[in-house]
Amino acid sequence: MNVILLDDADFNEAGTVRLSGPRVQHMNNVLASVPGDQLTVGRINGKLGRATVGKISARSAEFYDVVLDRDPPPPLPVTLVLALPRPIVVNRLLAAVTSLGVKQVYLFHSRRVEKSYWHSPVLGPDNIGKQLRLGLEQAVDTILPEVHLRKRFKPFVEDELPGLIAGGAAWLAHPGTRDGDGSGKKGARTTLIVGPEGGFIPYEVECFDQLGVSRLSLGERILRVETAVHVAVAKAGGLIR
Amino acid sequence: MNVILLDDADFNEAGTVRLSGPRVQHMNNVLASVPGDQLTVGRINGKLGRATVGKISARSAEFYDVVLDRDPPPPLPVTLVLALPRPIVVNRLLAAVTSLGVKQVYLFHSRRVEKSYWHSPVLGPDNIGKQLRLGLEQAVDTILPEVHLRKRFKPFVEDELPGLIAGGAAWLAHPGTRDGDGSGKKGARTTLIVGPEGGFIPYEVECFDQLGVSRLSLGERILRVETAVHVAVAKAGGLIR
Repeated sequence: MNVILLDDADFNEAGTVRLSGPRVQHMNNVLASVPGDQLTVGRINGKLGRATVGKISARSAEFYDVVLDRDPPPPLPVTLVLALPRPIVVNRLLAAVTSLGVKQVYLFHSRRVEKSYWHSPVLGPDNIGKQLRLGLEQAVDTILPEVHLRKRFKPFVEDELPGLIAGGAAWLAHPGTRDGDGSGKKGARTTLIVGPEGGFIPYEVECFDQLGVSRLSLGERILRVETAVHVAVAKAGGLIR
Repeated sequence: MNVILLDDADFNEAGTVRLSGPRVQHMNNVLASVPGDQLTVGRINGKLGRATVGKISARSAEFYDVVLDRDPPPPLPVTLVLALPRPIVVNRLLAAVTSLGVKQVYLFHSRRVEKSYWHSPVLGPDNIGKQLRLGLEQAVDTILPEVHLRKRFKPFVEDELPGLIAGGAAWLAHPGTRDGDGSGKKGARTTLIVGPEGGFIPYEVECFDQLGVSRLSLGERILRVETAVHVAVAKAGGLIR
């Protein structure tokens, strides 16, 4: 936790901030915070800054002199469109791509996604919010990503994906291919599509081809989804030059 | 498991191959293999090819017509020098960097590595071998990486690291820095140094500076070790251009 994130509800009328929950545990158990300490804070969907610790107990803490004067780091201009991975991977990936600066994530169904994954509690809003916050707290960011669940392949790919792609580059990370041209729009906002373990079926690849999506090569090796997403996001986001 | 890996001990004098263990479980439970099926196989530290399933039971399987005629994919020319992460991350990272093609891994001590990590059973040769094989099986590769454990910072960095760096590029992944020039030897073999959660202490960074190690920027965000290693390996290895 490299920043203490503050919610609107934590701010009271007197201009001070009162917080509870895991953040206070972190302040007590990891930072060993005492009154007068200055900490890096950020307001969810707002600015970063510093605050001074006031009263602190095992359950709650107060901040005063809260100064929020810095913009959060710029977002990575990548929309991640990912076939729903197994639940434990969803958790790790949501936190990881959030830390990398991705702000739009679509989890969607494809043939080789196990249908039972859609019933996992990891997809509940509380857990998703928790993973996103872990990513923000890691990277010292405040802007919560949006995570969209799309349980049917065809309506998503036919009706919604074309709008996401419009005006930017679109890449499909697919093993054993060479780089295409990203629809000729490098450097712009990029939509990055990554398949499930076992890959997309040929019909699905054809759907993406028809939308003009280019291939993104990650080398000739077959990578786990988790590894592939890291490498592809870094590449599509221009994080690596 | 995208390839069945064969050990020298699996080959008998008659030219057939007999195997047991998790590979047979995979053949039974995932592939539902029956006699006559052709599978992708590879000999550890040797070539890739195909083999035909002969007798198969719950506990053992035989292959015949074993043809090993393809080279494994080229290695990634990156030596990963990583401050020992916590045990669960060691496991995931060894498999992941193996799948990416890294063949030399040094796990070493630095100030912010918890000393208890060195006593974890994950560092036993059986477990390390298991994780490396998972990575090879994922990526369809045969060449086992070498993993070196270095429990003392100073002797490693002073006596051994200069030899590893000599003749290639050397990068230190460090948050908030700009890219250096990689010691002016881009494209060659690269030694990539990644710190622990919390980073290297200033003294340690100075040691690397004195060896002429360049800084590798991963953007202004602070990343988890696991995320940083993925991005930095892909960047140092030229996997992403």
